Amino acid sequence: MGHDAAIGVFDSGVGGLTVAKAIMAALPKERIIYFGDTARVPYGGKSRETVTKYTEQIIRFLLTKEVKALVIACNTMSALALDTVEKNLSIPIIGVVKPGALAASKVTKNKRIGVIATESTISSGLYVHYIGQIDPEIEVLGKACPLFCPLVEEGMLSDPVTTEMAKRYLDGLIHQDIDTLILGCTHYPLLTETIAEVVGKQVTLVNPAYETAKELKELLKSEALLAQQPENASHSFYVSDSVEKFQSFAARILHLDAVSAENIHIEEY
Amino acid sequence: MGHDAAIGVFDSGVGGLTVAKAIMAALPKERIIYFGDTARVPYGGKSRETVTKYTEQIIRFLLTKEVKALVIACNTMSALALDTVEKNLSIPIIGVVKPGALAASKVTKNKRIGVIATESTISSGLYVHYIGQIDPEIEVLGKACPLFCPLVEEGMLSDPVTTEMAKRYLDGLIHQDIDTLILGCTHYPLLTETIAEVVGKQVTLVNPAYETAKELKELLKSEALLAQQPENASHSFYVSDSVEKFQSFAARILHLDAVSAENIHIEEY
Repeated sequence: MGHDAAIGVFDSGVGGLTVAKAIMAALPKERIIYFGDTARVPYGGKSRETVTKYTEQIIRFLLTKEVKALVIACNTMSALALDTVEKNLSIPIIGVVKPGALAASKVTKNKRIGVIATESTISSGLYVHYIGQIDPEIEVLGKACPLFCPLVEEGMLSDPVTTEMAKRYLDGLIHQDIDTLILGCTHYPLLTETIAEVVGKQVTLVNPAYETAKELKELLKSEALLAQQPENASHSFYVSDSVEKFQSFAARILHLDAVSAENIHIEEY
Repeated sequence: MGHDAAIGVFDSGVGGLTVAKAIMAALPKERIIYFGDTARVPYGGKSRETVTKYTEQIIRFLLTKEVKALVIACNTMSALALDTVEKNLSIPIIGVVKPGALAASKVTKNKRIGVIATESTISSGLYVHYIGQIDPEIEVLGKACPLFCPLVEEGMLSDPVTTEMAKRYLDGLIHQDIDTLILGCTHYPLLTETIAEVVGKQVTLVNPAYETAKELKELLKSEALLAQQPENASHSFYVSDSVEKFQSFAARILHLDAVSAENIHIEEY
């Protein structure tokens, strides 16, 4: 696996494209092979066993593409499966939870951080764990927001219903005086405007994608794996369900042009 | 496969329990083996290929239980996969779409029927097709309601947000003067109160579950497969994700006591 190999980036569906986009911006020479498990999405309410099994299948698929490193562009998989899958890997792998925890710890002044994420990510307690390792004095308050993903997938990014749900989910956190809020699911950055309006200016929103891209860059540098060629990156996209919906989401929401995806049978890996 | 074998009833998740319940009420002597694909739920936005593949796996699993008949307790699978899977089966199989179409055709007076369902069910056009076969003069108006399932799964059965979404989804149908509305997804009967309030008394709601149970009864009778033993039915429940969430949904929403489910790896079938 030389420095010219691609980076495998994967998610339960389309949300991880927000992370892929941050990586493309931070590392324009790198070639990305993206996999979205659109046939079995969402993962956010599912068990550790199921999420780990699916993560292992996805990694086996990406290894057939001879990637040099892996990025779990999904908080739920990072929270539930990273620990297990990294044990058997001979290439580096990073998730989004640890970078998100680090970024938020740098931002908070009053040492009160909120985390919004899927039910499974919140139940895992992993954000609390990592932030506690960085600074045990920081208090972390988690809140699952199960309707945010379907609202994003419906394109209801700016809508009275979305605002109403944001108020319900976030009121408790605001009243507990957080000054930092981690967007702990890759769909949530698409709701930045609505969430910012609800939490107000005193709360800084943290998108783990940027810190993840930064950590990836440092990792590739330290392992002498940074791409050497000038910018000619041609990315590849694979999904487990049909490609049309994925391509239109990528184009519409993320303004990624020319996303031509291929369907694969992930269960066979 | 004698008349004392069980009936296989399956769904993408928990919604099909509304159909199982109708079957239990109509056929109290019958033993049900239920499968809910909770690891890969929801199916409603997924492609025909994926839904058909998953349906085939579920049927292969249920056949290992030596069932005498199969009921697809899911509109999406009935609409996208029934045609394909019934070709290779030696036992009878029914879905919920045809019974739902029949029930609504009997109810309508002004020959204007609305159908609400998942995106995939609406796109399939199967309700339109079946109702057209029964009475070509009936006009069928379909509307996908993608947020209804997540709202039900969140338990927001009676909530201003659910009412607001119901208004948006249903206003067009009401203005087109329907007098009958098919609840074309097994989750939707749980929203009966909200939907009835929004559409008003002039619109009759049709739950395909009842007509499906009736059709099943007639089918078992005509094939001499009705259970002969007195009421001692002990049902079995299988799911592909962890059992806890399924059991609590069954208990909480459907008031089914003593649902003890077992986890199975559906991908291996």
